[in-house]
Amino acid sequence: MSELLDHLRSTRLVDHHVHGCWPTDGPRDRFENALNEANTEPLPAWDSAFDSQLGFAIRARCAPLLDLDPHADPDDYWQRRTELGEAEVAARFVGSAGVSDWLVDTGFQGETCGPERLASWSGSNARTVLRLESLAEQAVAVGGDYPATFDDLVRARVDDHQAVGFKTVIAYRTGFAIDWSEPDRAAVDEAARRWADQGGTRLSDPMLLCFGIRTALKIQAERGGLPLQVHVGFGDRDEDLQRTDPLLLLPLLREPIATEASIALLHCYPYERQAGYLAQAFAGVHLDVGLAINYLGGRSRDLIARSLELAPFRKLLYSSDAYGPAELHYLGAELWRTGTAAVLDRFVTDGDWSPADARRIADLIAADNARRLYQL
Amino acid sequence: MSELLDHLRSTRLVDHHVHGCWPTDGPRDRFENALNEANTEPLPAWDSAFDSQLGFAIRARCAPLLDLDPHADPDDYWQRRTELGEAEVAARFVGSAGVSDWLVDTGFQGETCGPERLASWSGSNARTVLRLESLAEQAVAVGGDYPATFDDLVRARVDDHQAVGFKTVIAYRTGFAIDWSEPDRAAVDEAARRWADQGGTRLSDPMLLCFGIRTALKIQAERGGLPLQVHVGFGDRDEDLQRTDPLLLLPLLREPIATEASIALLHCYPYERQAGYLAQAFAGVHLDVGLAINYLGGRSRDLIARSLELAPFRKLLYSSDAYGPAELHYLGAELWRTGTAAVLDRFVTDGDWSPADARRIADLIAADNARRLYQL
Amino acid sequence: MSELLDHLRSTRLVDHHVHGCWPTDGPRDRFENALNEANTEPLPAWDSAFDSQLGFAIRARCAPLLDLDPHADPDDYWQRRTELGEAEVAARFVGSAGVSDWLVDTGFQGETCGPERLASWSGSNARTVLRLESLAEQAVAVGGDYPATFDDLVRARVDDHQAVGFKTVIAYRTGFAIDWSEPDRAAVDEAARRWADQGGTRLSDPMLLCFGIRTALKIQAERGGLPLQVHVGFGDRDEDLQRTDPLLLLPLLREPIATEASIALLHCYPYERQAGYLAQAFAGVHLDVGLAINYLGGRSRDLIARSLELAPFRKLLYSSDAYGPAELHYLGAELWRTGTAAVLDRFVTDGDWSPADARRIADLIAADNARRLYQL
Repeated sequence: MSELLDHLRSTRLVDHHVHGCWPTDGPRDRFENALNEANTEPLPAWDSAFDSQLGFAIRARCAPLLDLDPHADPDDYWQRRTELGEAEVAARFVGSAGVSDWLVDTGFQGETCGPERLASWSGSNARTVLRLESLAEQAVAVGGDYPATFDDLVRARVDDHQAVGFKTVIAYRTGFAIDWSEPDRAAVDEAARRWADQGGTRLSDPMLLCFGIRTALKIQAERGGLPLQVHVGFGDRDEDLQRTDPLLLLPLLREPIATEASIALLHCYPYERQAGYLAQAFAGVHLDVGLAINYLGGRSRDLIARSLELAPFRKLLYSSDAYGPAELHYLGAELWRTGTAAVLDRFVTDGDWSPADARRIADLIAADNARRLYQL
Repeated sequence: MSELLDHLRSTRLVDHHVHGCWPTDGPRDRFENALNEANTEPLPAWDSAFDSQLGFAIRARCAPLLDLDPHADPDDYWQRRTELGEAEVAARFVGSAGVSDWLVDTGFQGETCGPERLASWSGSNARTVLRLESLAEQAVAVGGDYPATFDDLVRARVDDHQAVGFKTVIAYRTGFAIDWSEPDRAAVDEAARRWADQGGTRLSDPMLLCFGIRTALKIQAERGGLPLQVHVGFGDRDEDLQRTDPLLLLPLLREPIATEASIALLHCYPYERQAGYLAQAFAGVHLDVGLAINYLGGRSRDLIARSLELAPFRKLLYSSDAYGPAELHYLGAELWRTGTAAVLDRFVTDGDWSPADARRIADLIAADNARRLYQL
Repeated sequence: MSELLDHLRSTRLVDHHVHGCWPTDGPRDRFENALNEANTEPLPAWDSAFDSQLGFAIRARCAPLLDLDPHADPDDYWQRRTELGEAEVAARFVGSAGVSDWLVDTGFQGETCGPERLASWSGSNARTVLRLESLAEQAVAVGGDYPATFDDLVRARVDDHQAVGFKTVIAYRTGFAIDWSEPDRAAVDEAARRWADQGGTRLSDPMLLCFGIRTALKIQAERGGLPLQVHVGFGDRDEDLQRTDPLLLLPLLREPIATEASIALLHCYPYERQAGYLAQAFAGVHLDVGLAINYLGGRSRDLIARSLELAPFRKLLYSSDAYGPAELHYLGAELWRTGTAAVLDRFVTDGDWSPADARRIADLIAADNARRLYQL
């Protein structure tokens, strides 16, 4: 094993964007469907979620934690999982991820556990990231003057949860090619009324989405910390993936409120090189290539390498974006460690980096950059 | 040689999208121009089609089948080709490709042979894929009520040719950013009249293109089999390549008629990662990275690797998209075999895949996925 | 060391797009800011320009030329740089780049030296490339009939400077998605008047930008030589990077004046594969991946490899796009040599290229293609 990988195995990570895992048993369908990020429909009979890079990575790297041989057969894997029960499976994987801090997006919880459970299973810390669109749905339900209500509610939730950041899923709602200029207060209120009249669910009005993001950036500017996480790229099929090219965020980033703001572009596949450009161009822009690391499995090494192009090294973060099966909470960390060690060892072998620099930059991405950004 | 490559050399492929090769002699210009997919003009005097990845790959990997050393000089190569004659050259390459089934797009034949000839030279099967835009040109020439005429004609041609699939070249006509909603029957008929008045050649009306594709999907839903092949990405310079990003097909794929349909995204360079996303997001979406494998030559390995990212392994297909010189029919298979073996062997070496899985997935891509999709 | 790298170290390059370097001392801020192409603001206190692939590449590969060990500490590097003085630093790096011809874009000079100084430091030749937008600003200041004044001025400047080419920075002004049809002479004159009334600085009128480019192509057609360099892709943050996808140049390239014209797409990251497609599709389109080679440092090898996909080998060029610190003039050449040798050696090892071809193609990209294109 490389010395660097050895070092990373003993380094605890900050998983700066993650969700809960399932604490209770569920059917095989739930598990297999969770191995496909983009398609939420059942697979055809001729297909198998295991026949994918993620499925192979789970069999290769997760099976041993369930006392199976690497590359265990899918049926054997599922049987062993069932024997142990979801809670034991979760405890093993979450406990083995080597994560010191889970920053948990609690905006969409489904059957998954909350931050406390992740923390207790791993003997580490868990903090809350607030999803702006969920807060908007709460604010519109309150009624009254929407701009003031939303602003108050966001501040209150930050305090209630001692939240460490905000997240927006505007990628899933309109994509990034919207009008990012400051909306008129009265127009925001009127748009909120229209939205309330339509039921006030699943916010997709571009002006209200923009208002939510601007409110978060304003609170960040006042209080410090509280970076804005922006889902970018690969996600489920409701998304117009081509409208989530992070370059479409340029008009926002050029707005005075955003140019120096702390922003984390999440995941970014297949636009990780474009995200790296933004991280070089704007002082506060950071990025990770989580989520896709899990889905690319044996190909994640190349993705990690591409994330190390234009992006300054103090702008790179680690995340798993795990949701549901706790394999994802572990696997993200495992693939990141092995992939990063392989990529950085290669830089050293080629004479491009010193061994000391490789270790230092690995530590920055593993945890130190996130500690600085989120003021942990 | 790796065991996996050894295995692949004895595995017969389904080339799920190919054209005929030349059966008769032609001048050197014809040959050299055929080595440039994008530019159909003669090259300047200072250029040479041999000085490209494809040219180098032909010299490296095709020369030995003409009894020359690898990397033979272009002039020697051409001289030997001339000595043997096009028919002998074609018989050697087609016969050595190790292909069990050629699925032949007969929509643009030029000087190339038909499916029967490919079959006889290789001792294998050849089946027909119907190009929708060619059928539309036949239907508009018939006159009468266009929607009915086109529908009847497509069904008749499927029966006449025992066709196994459809193909659309809408990429070359309008690109993918069109209105994909169901067009009004009367409006289709009127658009067809306008097209007939303009001569009825080279269909480029977006509504008629959409109608053709929807008709094919309707017949597919009724009869089973009959996947729709969609040319995506890299092609000749008439195409607006940026309008063939497969993500622009999302509005079509979200239409009820397409969401579960069998669709094969052809070739996809440089959008192979986007195509992989669609293959994960939609149950019936498949893809190949043919055509570009030939054109990338020594770089095709990385393209094959990128095709093994998000795409589920049962959604990947092999094609050469060869047209003209029979080198392309052979080289596509040869580069796919060596590239796939190298990529999959690497996954095994890194511990990400088991050797048995590598062989199984290679077999799926080589032939089994296509056999299932096309009901061969 | 590989024989090919050995050969390339003794081969003199044509740097077909470069700027001057600083001849006089400046503060550390000037140096560190010059290591970030995209962001011209000062970095936050927690960041360091050295913690980037470019910073690591300078420490790894430039430190020895300043008598330091590879991977020297940034403070030691800066101290040594200061001891020697900018002129000595520049002389060492420019003199060690192994460049026979510098083709210098003199359109934006700032504190940098002119072509003569580059030539004298390196004992080689330096020629001028004229930036069209700078000439337009001179022409509008003259007043009178703008189309005639501009045309006359461009021809005069070509003669004055014995210029070898033109360059456009339309990427920074409007991006490529403009109306490329031939503008009406009277409309051009009127647009120029409007621009003059607004002060006549920083040309951003799409019609005048188009007119400038068309004028350059007309003069090229009349006189021969004089290729048009087009900045493509990665640059500073004023640019809408997504509007500089070179595929958006297709409407221009299909105009009769451009289809056969000599055009060099500069740098191209992250659109190098799209640029390669255009180089295959249009007889006169060339490209380089300079600028990004420096900024990618240890990752530049993969970029060089990707540039060797669709692009015919006689269409590839070398550039550094260096500006400011002379490290960039040297490092571009050093990374190009080591990266190209590694990529081509791999093709040879894999049996895709012969050793003789690898050397021949390396020579083409190093200098011969540029000598032909610029008629040096």
